[in-house]
Amino acid sequence: MDETSSSLVFGGHQKFFTHASEVLGCDMNFAVFLPPAAQNLECPVLYWLSGLTCTEQNFVTKAGAQRYAAEQGLIIVVPDTSPRGSQVPDIDDPYLGCGASFYINATQPPWSDYYLMHEYLVKELTGLVEGSFPVAKDRKGAMRGISGHSMGGHAAIMIALRNPGRYRSLSAFAPISSPSNSPWGEAAYLHYLGEDRESWKSWDASFLVKDATEKLPILIDQGEEDPFLLDQLKPTVFQKACATVDHPLRLRIHEGYDHSYFFVASFIKEHIEYHAAALAG
Amino acid sequence: MDETSSSLVFGGHQKFFTHASEVLGCDMNFAVFLPPAAQNLECPVLYWLSGLTCTEQNFVTKAGAQRYAAEQGLIIVVPDTSPRGSQVPDIDDPYLGCGASFYINATQPPWSDYYLMHEYLVKELTGLVEGSFPVAKDRKGAMRGISGHSMGGHAAIMIALRNPGRYRSLSAFAPISSPSNSPWGEAAYLHYLGEDRESWKSWDASFLVKDATEKLPILIDQGEEDPFLLDQLKPTVFQKACATVDHPLRLRIHEGYDHSYFFVASFIKEHIEYHAAALAG
Repeated sequence: MDETSSSLVFGGHQKFFTHASEVLGCDMNFAVFLPPAAQNLECPVLYWLSGLTCTEQNFVTKAGAQRYAAEQGLIIVVPDTSPRGSQVPDIDDPYLGCGASFYINATQPPWSDYYLMHEYLVKELTGLVEGSFPVAKDRKGAMRGISGHSMGGHAAIMIALRNPGRYRSLSAFAPISSPSNSPWGEAAYLHYLGEDRESWKSWDASFLVKDATEKLPILIDQGEEDPFLLDQLKPTVFQKACATVDHPLRLRIHEGYDHSYFFVASFIKEHIEYHAAALAG
Repeated sequence: MDETSSSLVFGGHQKFFTHASEVLGCDMNFAVFLPPAAQNLECPVLYWLSGLTCTEQNFVTKAGAQRYAAEQGLIIVVPDTSPRGSQVPDIDDPYLGCGASFYINATQPPWSDYYLMHEYLVKELTGLVEGSFPVAKDRKGAMRGISGHSMGGHAAIMIALRNPGRYRSLSAFAPISSPSNSPWGEAAYLHYLGEDRESWKSWDASFLVKDATEKLPILIDQGEEDPFLLDQLKPTVFQKACATVDHPLRLRIHEGYDHSYFFVASFIKEHIEYHAAALAG
Protein backbone atom coordinates (compact mmCIF):
# COMPACT_ATOMS: atom_id res chain seq x y z
CA MET A 1 0.00 0.00 0.00
CA ASP A 2 1.16 3.54 -0.77
CA GLU A 3 0.72 6.53 1.51
CA THR A 4 -0.67 9.36 -0.61
CA SER A 5 -0.76 12.04 2.09
CA SER A 6 -0.18 12.63 5.77
CA SER A 7 -1.18 15.69 7.81
CA LEU A 8 -0.77 16.44 11.45
CA VAL A 9 -4.16 17.21 13.06
CA PHE A 10 -4.81 17.61 16.80
CA GLY A 11 -1.39 16.08 17.41
CA GLY A 12 -2.26 12.88 15.52
CA HIS A 13 -1.68 11.90 11.91
CA GLN A 14 -4.40 11.85 9.26
CA LYS A 15 -3.13 9.61 6.50
CA PHE A 16 -4.49 8.49 3.15
CA PHE A 17 -3.44 5.32 1.36
CA THR A 18 -4.05 3.55 -1.91
CA HIS A 19 -3.62 -0.17 -2.56
CA ALA A 20 -4.43 -2.74 -5.21
CA SER A 21 -7.33 -4.76 -3.81
CA GLU A 22 -7.24 -8.45 -4.71
CA VAL A 23 -10.84 -8.97 -3.60
CA LEU A 24 -12.23 -6.06 -5.60
CA GLY A 25 -9.89 -6.18 -8.59
CA CYS A 26 -9.26 -2.44 -8.52
CA ASP A 27 -7.20 0.18 -6.71
CA MET A 28 -8.82 1.34 -3.47
CA ASN A 29 -8.23 4.38 -1.29
CA PHE A 30 -8.67 4.47 2.45
CA ALA A 31 -7.93 6.85 5.31
CA VAL A 32 -6.33 6.15 8.68
CA PHE A 33 -6.18 8.49 11.66
CA LEU A 34 -3.45 7.64 14.13
CA PRO A 35 -3.86 9.35 17.51
CA PRO A 36 -0.79 10.65 19.35
CA ALA A 37 -0.95 7.62 21.67
CA ALA A 38 -0.34 5.30 18.70
CA GLN A 39 3.28 6.47 18.57
CA ASN A 40 4.01 4.45 21.70
CA LEU A 41 1.03 2.22 22.39
CA GLU A 42 -1.36 -0.16 20.68
CA CYS A 43 -4.76 1.52 20.35
CA PRO A 44 -8.26 0.24 19.60
CA VAL A 45 -9.61 0.86 16.11
CA LEU A 46 -12.93 2.23 14.87
CA TYR A 47 -14.04 1.44 11.32
CA TRP A 48 -16.23 4.18 9.82
CA LEU A 49 -18.46 3.51 6.79
CA SER A 50 -19.72 6.55 4.89
CA GLY A 51 -22.98 7.02 3.04
CA LEU A 52 -24.20 7.16 -0.55
CA THR A 53 -22.09 9.26 -2.97
CA CYS A 54 -19.24 9.59 -0.44
CA THR A 55 -15.61 8.55 -0.65
CA GLU A 56 -13.04 8.02 2.08
CA GLN A 57 -12.70 11.83 2.20
CA ASN A 58 -16.08 13.05 3.50
CA PHE A 59 -15.89 11.83 7.08
CA VAL A 60 -12.24 12.76 7.39
CA THR A 61 -12.71 16.36 6.27
CA LYS A 62 -16.19 17.11 7.64
CA ALA A 63 -16.88 15.21 10.88
CA GLY A 64 -14.19 16.74 13.08
CA ALA A 65 -13.63 13.35 14.73
CA GLN A 66 -9.86 13.69 14.99
CA ARG A 67 -9.96 15.92 18.06
CA TYR A 68 -11.90 13.33 20.05
CA ALA A 69 -10.04 10.33 18.65
CA ALA A 70 -6.78 12.06 19.61
CA GLU A 71 -8.08 12.60 23.14
CA GLN A 72 -9.35 9.02 23.46
CA GLY A 73 -6.44 7.27 21.73
CA LEU A 74 -8.58 5.71 19.01
CA ILE A 75 -7.41 4.77 15.52
CA ILE A 76 -10.05 5.48 12.84
CA VAL A 77 -10.12 3.66 9.50
CA VAL A 78 -12.33 4.96 6.68
CA PRO A 79 -12.64 2.92 3.46
CA ASP A 80 -14.14 4.15 0.20
CA THR A 81 -17.84 3.36 -0.32
CA SER A 82 -17.46 1.06 -3.37
CA PRO A 83 -14.98 -0.31 -5.86
CA ARG A 84 -13.76 2.35 -8.32
CA GLY A 85 -12.14 2.50 -11.73
CA SER A 86 -12.84 2.31 -15.45
CA GLN A 87 -13.19 -1.49 -15.32
CA VAL A 88 -15.79 -1.37 -12.50
CA PRO A 89 -19.48 -1.56 -13.54
CA ASP A 90 -21.36 1.66 -12.90
CA ILE A 91 -24.69 3.20 -13.82
CA ASP A 92 -25.87 6.78 -14.34
CA ASP A 93 -27.51 7.04 -10.91
CA PRO A 94 -25.78 8.51 -7.83
CA TYR A 95 -27.44 5.90 -5.59
CA LEU A 96 -26.36 2.83 -7.58
CA GLY A 97 -22.95 1.49 -8.57
CA CYS A 98 -19.89 3.54 -7.69
CA GLY A 99 -20.35 5.30 -4.35
CA ALA A 100 -23.32 3.07 -3.52
CA SER A 101 -22.12 -0.47 -2.82
CA PHE A 102 -24.20 -0.87 0.34
CA TYR A 103 -21.09 -2.77 1.54
CA ILE A 104 -22.58 -6.15 0.51
CA ASN A 105 -21.32 -8.99 -1.69
CA ALA A 106 -23.20 -8.74 -5.01
CA THR A 107 -24.33 -12.01 -6.59
CA GLN A 108 -25.68 -10.72 -9.90
CA PRO A 109 -23.63 -9.92 -13.01
CA PRO A 110 -22.09 -7.54 -13.87
CA TRP A 111 -21.87 -6.36 -10.23
CA SER A 112 -20.72 -9.68 -8.79
CA ASP A 113 -17.27 -9.40 -10.38
CA TYR A 114 -16.37 -6.28 -8.38
CA TYR A 115 -18.99 -5.36 -5.76
CA LEU A 116 -17.71 -7.56 -2.93
CA MET A 117 -17.29 -4.87 -0.32
CA HIS A 118 -18.23 -7.03 2.66
CA GLU A 119 -15.48 -9.47 1.83
CA TYR A 120 -13.08 -6.62 1.12
CA LEU A 121 -13.75 -4.96 4.46
CA VAL A 122 -13.87 -7.99 6.68
CA LYS A 123 -10.99 -9.90 5.13
CA GLU A 124 -8.67 -7.77 3.06
CA LEU A 125 -8.78 -4.27 4.55
CA THR A 126 -8.90 -5.44 8.16
CA GLY A 127 -5.87 -7.63 7.60
CA LEU A 128 -3.98 -4.87 5.86
CA VAL A 129 -4.74 -2.25 8.50
CA GLU A 130 -4.26 -4.44 11.52
CA GLY A 131 -1.02 -5.81 10.12
CA SER A 132 0.34 -2.33 9.46
CA PHE A 133 -0.77 -0.17 12.38
CA PRO A 134 -0.53 -0.63 16.15
CA VAL A 135 -4.04 -2.01 16.76
CA ALA A 136 -4.64 -3.24 20.31
CA LYS A 137 -5.49 -6.91 20.73
CA ASP A 138 -6.39 -9.23 23.55
CA ARG A 139 -6.83 -13.02 23.57
CA LYS A 140 -10.18 -12.62 21.76
CA GLY A 141 -8.60 -10.61 18.96
CA ALA A 142 -8.35 -7.01 17.88
CA MET A 143 -10.17 -4.28 19.79
CA ARG A 144 -12.49 -3.21 16.98
CA GLY A 145 -15.56 -0.98 16.79
CA ILE A 146 -17.66 -0.03 13.80
CA SER A 147 -19.87 2.93 12.94
CA GLY A 148 -21.15 4.79 9.92
CA HIS A 149 -23.68 7.16 8.37
CA SER A 150 -26.81 6.44 6.34
CA MET A 151 -25.95 3.59 3.91
CA GLY A 152 -22.79 3.14 6.00
CA GLY A 153 -24.74 3.30 9.25
CA HIS A 154 -26.82 0.36 8.08
CA ALA A 155 -23.69 -1.43 6.91
CA ALA A 156 -22.01 -1.00 10.29
CA ILE A 157 -24.94 -2.73 11.99
CA MET A 158 -25.32 -5.34 9.24
CA ILE A 159 -21.63 -6.24 9.24
CA ALA A 160 -21.47 -6.47 13.04
CA LEU A 161 -24.57 -8.70 13.10
CA ARG A 162 -23.22 -10.97 10.35
CA ASN A 163 -19.93 -11.37 12.17
CA PRO A 164 -20.65 -11.98 15.86
CA GLY A 165 -17.64 -11.50 18.12
CA ARG A 166 -15.79 -9.48 15.53
CA TYR A 167 -16.66 -6.00 16.83
CA ARG A 168 -16.82 -4.86 20.46
CA SER A 169 -18.76 -1.63 19.88
CA LEU A 170 -21.36 -0.52 17.37
CA SER A 171 -23.09 2.75 16.56
CA ALA A 172 -24.67 4.53 13.61
CA PHE A 173 -25.83 7.94 12.46
CA ALA A 174 -29.12 8.08 10.52
CA PRO A 175 -28.83 4.52 9.18
CA ILE A 176 -31.03 3.15 6.42
CA SER A 177 -32.65 0.83 8.93
CA SER A 178 -33.84 -1.76 6.42
CA PRO A 179 -32.67 -1.61 2.77
CA SER A 180 -35.52 -4.00 1.88
CA ASN A 181 -37.90 -1.26 3.05
CA SER A 182 -36.12 1.71 1.46
CA PRO A 183 -36.41 2.81 -2.20
CA TRP A 184 -32.62 3.39 -2.29
CA GLY A 185 -31.99 -0.07 -0.84
CA GLU A 186 -34.55 -1.84 -3.00
CA ALA A 187 -33.08 -0.41 -6.22
CA ALA A 188 -29.58 -1.41 -5.15
CA TYR A 189 -30.43 -4.90 -3.87
CA LEU A 190 -32.43 -5.65 -7.03
CA HIS A 191 -29.31 -4.91 -9.08
CA TYR A 192 -26.77 -6.51 -6.76
CA LEU A 193 -28.74 -9.49 -5.38
CA GLY A 194 -31.53 -10.06 -7.92
CA GLU A 195 -35.28 -10.42 -7.58
CA ASP A 196 -35.37 -13.07 -4.82
CA ARG A 197 -36.13 -10.92 -1.80
CA GLU A 198 -35.40 -13.81 0.54
CA SER A 199 -31.75 -13.45 -0.39
CA TRP A 200 -31.87 -9.80 0.70
CA LYS A 201 -32.56 -10.67 4.32
CA SER A 202 -29.01 -11.76 5.07
CA TRP A 203 -27.87 -8.24 4.09
CA ASP A 204 -30.60 -6.37 5.99
CA ALA A 205 -30.01 -5.39 9.63
CA SER A 206 -33.71 -5.41 10.46
CA PHE A 207 -33.88 -9.11 9.54
CA LEU A 208 -30.43 -10.06 10.80
CA VAL A 209 -31.04 -8.68 14.28
CA LYS A 210 -33.90 -11.13 14.80
CA ASP A 211 -31.45 -14.03 14.62
CA ALA A 212 -28.53 -12.35 16.38
CA THR A 213 -26.68 -14.74 18.68
CA GLU A 214 -24.71 -11.88 20.26
CA LYS A 215 -26.46 -8.99 22.01
CA LEU A 216 -24.00 -6.26 21.06
CA PRO A 217 -25.56 -2.93 22.19
CA ILE A 218 -26.30 -0.43 19.43
CA LEU A 219 -26.30 3.38 19.70
CA ILE A 220 -28.17 5.21 16.93
CA ASP A 221 -28.47 8.99 16.54
CA GLN A 222 -31.09 10.31 14.13
CA GLY A 223 -32.03 13.88 13.21
CA GLU A 224 -35.72 14.65 13.37
CA GLU A 225 -35.52 17.08 10.42
CA ASP A 226 -33.70 14.55 8.25
CA PRO A 227 -35.44 14.81 4.85
CA PHE A 228 -34.97 11.04 4.30
CA LEU A 229 -36.37 10.00 7.66
CA LEU A 230 -39.79 8.71 6.65
CA ASP A 231 -39.17 7.46 3.09
CA GLN A 232 -35.71 5.92 3.27
CA LEU A 233 -34.38 5.57 6.82
CA LYS A 234 -37.41 4.44 8.86
CA PRO A 235 -35.69 4.00 12.23
CA THR A 236 -38.84 2.51 13.74
CA VAL A 237 -38.53 -0.57 11.48
CA PHE A 238 -35.23 -1.42 13.13
CA GLN A 239 -36.45 -0.33 16.54
CA LYS A 240 -39.38 -2.76 16.30
CA ALA A 241 -37.13 -5.57 15.10
CA CYS A 242 -34.82 -5.02 18.08
CA ALA A 243 -37.80 -4.94 20.45
CA THR A 244 -39.11 -8.31 19.24
CA VAL A 245 -35.88 -10.02 20.28
CA ASP A 246 -34.96 -7.69 23.14
CA HIS A 247 -31.78 -6.53 21.39
CA PRO A 248 -30.21 -3.60 23.28
CA LEU A 249 -30.77 -0.44 21.23
CA ARG A 250 -30.44 3.18 22.24
CA LEU A 251 -32.15 5.27 19.54
CA ARG A 252 -31.86 9.01 20.08
CA ILE A 253 -33.96 11.39 17.97
CA HIS A 254 -32.49 14.90 17.83
CA GLU A 255 -34.88 17.76 17.26
CA GLY A 256 -33.94 20.09 14.42
CA TYR A 257 -31.01 18.13 12.96
CA ASP A 258 -30.86 17.01 9.32
CA HIS A 259 -28.96 14.30 7.40
CA SER A 260 -25.76 16.25 6.76
CA TYR A 261 -22.29 16.02 8.24
CA PHE A 262 -23.27 19.05 10.34
CA PHE A 263 -25.41 16.56 12.25
CA VAL A 264 -22.63 13.98 12.41
CA ALA A 265 -20.13 16.62 13.58
CA SER A 266 -22.50 17.71 16.35
CA PHE A 267 -22.60 14.24 17.95
CA ILE A 268 -19.41 12.50 16.85
CA LYS A 269 -17.74 13.34 20.18
CA GLU A 270 -20.28 11.17 21.98
CA HIS A 271 -19.83 8.28 19.53
CA ILE A 272 -16.05 8.42 19.79
CA GLU A 273 -16.29 8.38 23.57
CA TYR A 274 -18.85 5.56 23.43
CA HIS A 275 -16.56 3.40 21.32
CA ALA A 276 -13.46 4.30 23.32
CA ALA A 277 -15.19 3.30 26.56
CA ALA A 278 -16.44 0.00 25.12
CA LEU A 279 -13.03 -0.78 23.60
CA ALA A 280 -11.05 0.08 26.73
CA GLY A 281 -10.81 -3.63 27.47
CA MET B 1 -30.79 37.92 -0.30
CA ASP B 2 -32.01 34.34 -0.54
CA GLU B 3 -31.28 31.60 2.00
CA THR B 4 -30.13 28.55 0.04
CA SER B 5 -29.71 26.17 3.01
CA SER B 6 -29.84 26.00 6.78
CA SER B 7 -28.58 23.17 9.00
CA LEU B 8 -28.54 22.83 12.73
CA VAL B 9 -25.00 22.24 14.01
CA PHE B 10 -23.91 22.23 17.66
CA GLY B 11 -27.23 23.84 18.50
CA GLY B 12 -26.64 26.82 16.16
CA HIS B 13 -27.64 27.38 12.56
CA GLN B 14 -25.25 27.13 9.64
CA LYS B 15 -26.85 29.06 6.81
CA PHE B 16 -25.89 29.80 3.22
CA PHE B 17 -27.17 32.76 1.22
CA THR B 18 -26.95 34.15 -2.27
CA HIS B 19 -27.48 37.78 -3.27
CA ALA B 20 -27.01 40.05 -6.27
CA SER B 21 -23.97 42.18 -5.45
CA GLU B 22 -24.17 45.76 -6.74
CA VAL B 23 -20.49 46.38 -6.11
CA LEU B 24 -19.31 43.25 -7.92
CA GLY B 25 -21.99 43.06 -10.62
CA CYS B 26 -22.59 39.36 -10.05
CA ASP B 27 -24.41 36.96 -7.74
CA MET B 28 -22.43 36.14 -4.62
CA ASN B 29 -22.73 33.36 -2.05
CA PHE B 30 -21.84 33.68 1.60
CA ALA B 31 -22.24 31.64 4.77
CA VAL B 32 -23.43 32.73 8.21
CA PHE B 33 -23.21 30.72 11.42
CA LEU B 34 -25.64 31.87 14.10
CA PRO B 35 -24.81 30.53 17.57
CA PRO B 36 -27.64 29.46 19.89
CA ALA B 37 -27.24 32.73 21.83
CA ALA B 38 -28.21 34.71 18.71
CA GLN B 39 -31.79 33.55 19.13
CA ASN B 40 -32.18 35.90 22.08
CA LEU B 41 -29.15 38.19 22.17
CA GLU B 42 -27.01 40.33 19.92
CA CYS B 43 -23.65 38.62 19.39
CA PRO B 44 -20.26 39.79 18.11
CA VAL B 45 -19.33 38.78 14.57
CA LEU B 46 -16.17 37.26 13.11
CA TYR B 47 -15.48 37.63 9.39
CA TRP B 48 -13.47 34.75 7.94
CA LEU B 49 -11.62 35.06 4.62
CA SER B 50 -10.57 31.83 2.94
CA GLY B 51 -7.55 31.10 0.79
CA LEU B 52 -6.74 30.58 -2.89
CA THR B 53 -9.11 28.24 -4.80
CA CYS B 54 -11.65 28.21 -1.93
CA THR B 55 -15.29 29.25 -1.83
CA GLU B 56 -17.54 30.08 1.12
CA GLN B 57 -17.83 26.32 1.69
CA ASN B 58 -14.32 25.24 2.72
CA PHE B 59 -14.07 26.83 6.13
CA VAL B 60 -17.66 25.97 6.98
CA THR B 61 -17.29 22.26 6.20
CA LYS B 62 -13.68 21.65 7.24
CA ALA B 63 -12.62 23.88 10.13
CA GLY B 64 -15.03 22.63 12.80
CA ALA B 65 -15.41 26.18 14.12
CA GLN B 66 -19.14 25.89 14.85
CA ARG B 67 -18.64 24.03 18.12
CA TYR B 68 -16.51 26.79 19.57
CA ALA B 69 -18.55 29.64 18.08
CA ALA B 70 -21.66 28.04 19.59
CA GLU B 71 -19.93 27.90 22.98
CA GLN B 72 -18.66 31.48 22.76
CA GLY B 73 -21.77 33.04 21.22
CA LEU B 74 -19.98 34.27 18.11
CA ILE B 75 -21.56 34.83 14.67
CA ILE B 76 -19.25 33.83 11.81
CA VAL B 77 -19.58 35.26 8.29
CA VAL B 78 -17.72 33.65 5.39
CA PRO B 79 -17.79 35.31 1.96
CA ASP B 80 -16.68 33.71 -1.28
CA THR B 81 -13.08 34.43 -2.34
CA SER B 82 -13.81 36.37 -5.54
CA PRO B 83 -16.58 37.48 -7.88
CA ARG B 84 -18.07 34.59 -9.88
CA GLY B 85 -20.09 34.08 -13.03
CA SER B 86 -19.83 33.85 -16.80
CA GLN B 87 -19.49 37.64 -17.12
CA VAL B 88 -16.57 37.80 -14.63
CA PRO B 89 -13.05 37.85 -16.14
CA ASP B 90 -11.07 34.72 -15.36
CA ILE B 91 -7.86 33.06 -16.48
CA ASP B 92 -6.71 29.45 -16.73
CA ASP B 93 -4.70 29.55 -13.51
CA PRO B 94 -6.02 28.43 -10.11
CA TYR B 95 -4.13 31.26 -8.39
CA LEU B 96 -5.47 34.10 -10.56
CA GLY B 97 -8.97 35.34 -11.28
CA CYS B 98 -11.90 33.43 -9.83
CA GLY B 99 -11.04 32.05 -6.38
CA ALA B 100 -8.00 34.33 -6.17
CA SER B 101 -9.13 37.94 -5.74
CA PHE B 102 -6.69 38.66 -2.90
CA TYR B 103 -9.66 40.72 -1.57
CA ILE B 104 -8.32 43.95 -3.12
CA ASN B 105 -9.87 46.51 -5.45
CA ALA B 106 -8.39 45.92 -8.91
CA THR B 107 -7.47 48.97 -10.98
CA GLN B 108 -6.51 47.32 -14.26
CA PRO B 109 -8.92 46.19 -16.99
CA PRO B 110 -10.51 43.75 -17.40
CA TRP B 111 -10.28 42.98 -13.65
CA SER B 112 -11.30 46.44 -12.47
CA ASP B 113 -14.91 46.00 -13.61
CA TYR B 114 -15.53 43.15 -11.17
CA TYR B 115 -12.63 42.50 -8.80
CA LEU B 116 -13.58 45.00 -6.11
CA MET B 117 -13.66 42.59 -3.19
CA HIS B 118 -12.39 45.08 -0.59
CA GLU B 119 -15.26 47.44 -1.36
CA TYR B 120 -17.70 44.54 -1.44
CA LEU B 121 -16.63 43.25 1.95
CA VAL B 122 -16.26 46.52 3.80
CA LYS B 123 -19.32 48.26 2.39
CA GLU B 124 -21.87 45.92 0.86
CA LEU B 125 -21.53 42.59 2.70
CA THR B 126 -21.00 44.15 6.12
CA GLY B 127 -24.10 46.29 5.68
CA LEU B 128 -26.16 43.38 4.48
CA VAL B 129 -25.07 41.05 7.29
CA GLU B 130 -25.20 43.56 10.10
CA GLY B 131 -28.61 44.80 8.93
CA SER B 132 -30.01 41.26 8.82
CA PHE B 133 -28.55 39.43 11.81
CA PRO B 134 -28.34 40.33 15.50
CA VAL B 135 -24.80 41.74 15.56
CA ALA B 136 -23.81 43.35 18.85
CA LYS B 137 -22.92 47.03 18.76
CA ASP B 138 -21.72 49.63 21.22
CA ARG B 139 -21.28 53.38 20.78
CA LYS B 140 -18.18 52.79 18.65
CA GLY B 141 -20.07 50.50 16.27
CA ALA B 142 -20.44 46.79 15.60
CA MET B 143 -18.37 44.29 17.57
CA ARG B 144 -16.38 42.89 14.64
CA GLY B 145 -13.37 40.63 14.35
CA ILE B 146 -11.61 39.36 11.25
CA SER B 147 -9.49 36.31 10.47
CA GLY B 148 -8.56 34.12 7.54
CA HIS B 149 -6.23 31.58 5.99
CA SER B 150 -3.36 32.03 3.53
CA MET B 151 -4.52 34.62 0.91
CA GLY B 152 -7.41 35.30 3.29
CA GLY B 153 -5.10 35.49 6.29
CA HIS B 154 -3.19 38.27 4.58
CA ALA B 155 -6.44 39.96 3.59
CA ALA B 156 -7.71 39.91 7.17
CA ILE B 157 -4.60 41.78 8.31
CA MET B 158 -4.57 44.07 5.26
CA ILE B 159 -8.24 45.02 5.62
CA ALA B 160 -7.95 45.64 9.36
CA LEU B 161 -4.88 47.85 8.81
CA ARG B 162 -6.56 49.81 5.98
CA ASN B 163 -9.63 50.43 8.15
CA PRO B 164 -8.47 51.46 11.63
CA GLY B 165 -11.18 51.23 14.27
CA ARG B 166 -13.33 48.95 12.14
CA TYR B 167 -12.27 45.60 13.71
CA ARG B 168 -11.67 44.89 17.38
CA SER B 169 -9.81 41.60 16.95
CA LEU B 170 -7.51 40.20 14.28
CA SER B 171 -5.87 36.85 13.65
CA ALA B 172 -4.64 34.76 10.75
CA PHE B 173 -3.60 31.23 9.84
CA ALA B 174 -0.58 30.86 7.57
CA PRO B 175 -1.02 34.26 5.90
CA ILE B 176 0.81 35.29 2.76
CA SER B 177 2.71 37.85 4.78
CA SER B 178 3.57 40.16 1.88
CA PRO B 179 2.00 39.61 -1.55
CA SER B 180 4.69 41.87 -3.05
CA ASN B 181 7.22 39.27 -1.86
CA SER B 182 5.30 36.15 -2.89
CA PRO B 183 5.15 34.66 -6.42
CA TRP B 184 1.39 34.09 -6.00
CA GLY B 185 0.91 37.69 -4.88
CA GLU B 186 3.18 39.20 -7.50
CA ALA B 187 1.35 37.45 -10.34
CA ALA B 188 -2.02 38.56 -8.99
CA TYR B 189 -1.03 42.16 -8.23
CA LEU B 190 0.58 42.55 -11.65
CA HIS B 191 -2.75 41.61 -13.22
CA TYR B 192 -5.03 43.47 -10.83
CA LEU B 193 -2.92 46.58 -10.03
CA GLY B 194 -0.44 46.85 -12.91
CA GLU B 195 3.30 47.23 -13.06
CA ASP B 196 3.72 50.13 -10.64
CA ARG B 197 4.83 48.34 -7.50
CA GLU B 198 4.38 51.47 -5.43
CA SER B 199 0.62 51.02 -5.89
CA TRP B 200 0.88 47.53 -4.42
CA LYS B 201 2.01 48.80 -1.01
CA SER B 202 -1.44 49.98 0.01
CA TRP B 203 -2.66 46.38 -0.43
CA ASP B 204 0.29 44.72 1.34
CA ALA B 205 0.12 44.14 5.10
CA SER B 206 3.91 44.24 5.49
CA PHE B 207 3.94 47.80 4.17
CA LEU B 208 0.66 48.92 5.70
CA VAL B 209 1.69 47.91 9.21
CA LYS B 210 4.58 50.39 9.12
CA ASP B 211 2.11 53.27 8.91
CA ALA B 212 -0.59 51.80 11.18
CA THR B 213 -2.16 54.45 13.41
CA GLU B 214 -3.92 51.79 15.50
CA LYS B 215 -1.95 49.11 17.34
CA LEU B 216 -4.51 46.30 16.99
CA PRO B 217 -2.80 43.12 18.28
CA ILE B 218 -2.36 40.31 15.75
CA LEU B 219 -2.31 36.57 16.44
CA ILE B 220 -0.77 34.42 13.69
CA ASP B 221 -0.50 30.63 13.68
CA GLN B 222 1.83 29.02 11.15
CA GLY B 223 2.67 25.37 10.53
CA GLU B 224 6.37 24.61 10.35
CA GLU B 225 5.84 21.87 7.74
CA ASP B 226 3.76 24.15 5.51
CA PRO B 227 5.09 23.50 1.99
CA PHE B 228 4.54 27.19 1.08
CA LEU B 229 6.33 28.58 4.11
CA LEU B 230 9.59 29.73 2.56
CA ASP B 231 8.55 30.59 -1.00
CA GLN B 232 5.12 32.17 -0.58
CA LEU B 233 4.22 32.91 3.03
CA LYS B 234 7.46 34.25 4.56
CA PRO B 235 6.15 35.08 8.03
CA THR B 236 9.43 36.70 8.99
CA VAL B 237 8.85 39.50 6.46
CA PHE B 238 5.75 40.55 8.39
CA GLN B 239 7.38 39.84 11.73
CA LYS B 240 10.25 42.21 10.88
CA ALA B 241 7.84 44.88 9.65
CA CYS B 242 5.92 44.68 12.93
CA ALA B 243 9.15 44.83 14.92
CA THR B 244 10.30 48.06 13.22
CA VAL B 245 7.19 49.89 14.42
CA ASP B 246 6.63 47.89 17.60
CA HIS B 247 3.28 46.56 16.38
CA PRO B 248 1.95 43.87 18.74
CA LEU B 249 2.28 40.50 16.98
CA ARG B 250 2.11 37.01 18.44
CA LEU B 251 3.49 34.62 15.80
CA ARG B 252 3.31 30.96 16.79
CA ILE B 253 5.15 28.37 14.73
CA HIS B 254 3.68 24.87 15.15
CA GLU B 255 6.02 21.94 14.63
CA GLY B 256 4.75 19.33 12.19
CA TYR B 257 1.66 21.15 10.86
CA ASP B 258 1.09 21.84 7.17
CA HIS B 259 -1.04 24.34 5.19
CA SER B 260 -4.29 22.35 5.16
CA TYR B 261 -7.56 22.75 7.00
CA PHE B 262 -6.32 19.97 9.31
CA PHE B 263 -3.97 22.65 10.66
CA VAL B 264 -6.74 25.25 10.84
CA ALA B 265 -9.07 22.78 12.58
CA SER B 266 -6.39 21.97 15.16
CA PHE B 267 -6.11 25.58 16.34
CA ILE B 268 -9.44 27.22 15.44
CA LYS B 269 -10.67 26.78 19.02
CA GLU B 270 -7.97 29.10 20.26
CA HIS B 271 -8.72 31.70 17.57
CA ILE B 272 -12.46 31.62 18.27
CA GLU B 273 -11.77 32.07 21.98
CA TYR B 274 -9.26 34.84 21.23
CA HIS B 275 -11.79 36.78 19.18
CA ALA B 276 -14.63 36.13 21.61
CA ALA B 277 -12.53 37.47 24.49
CA ALA B 278 -11.50 40.58 22.57
CA LEU B 279 -15.06 41.21 21.37
CA ALA B 280 -16.64 40.71 24.80
CA GLY B 281 -16.72 44.48 25.14
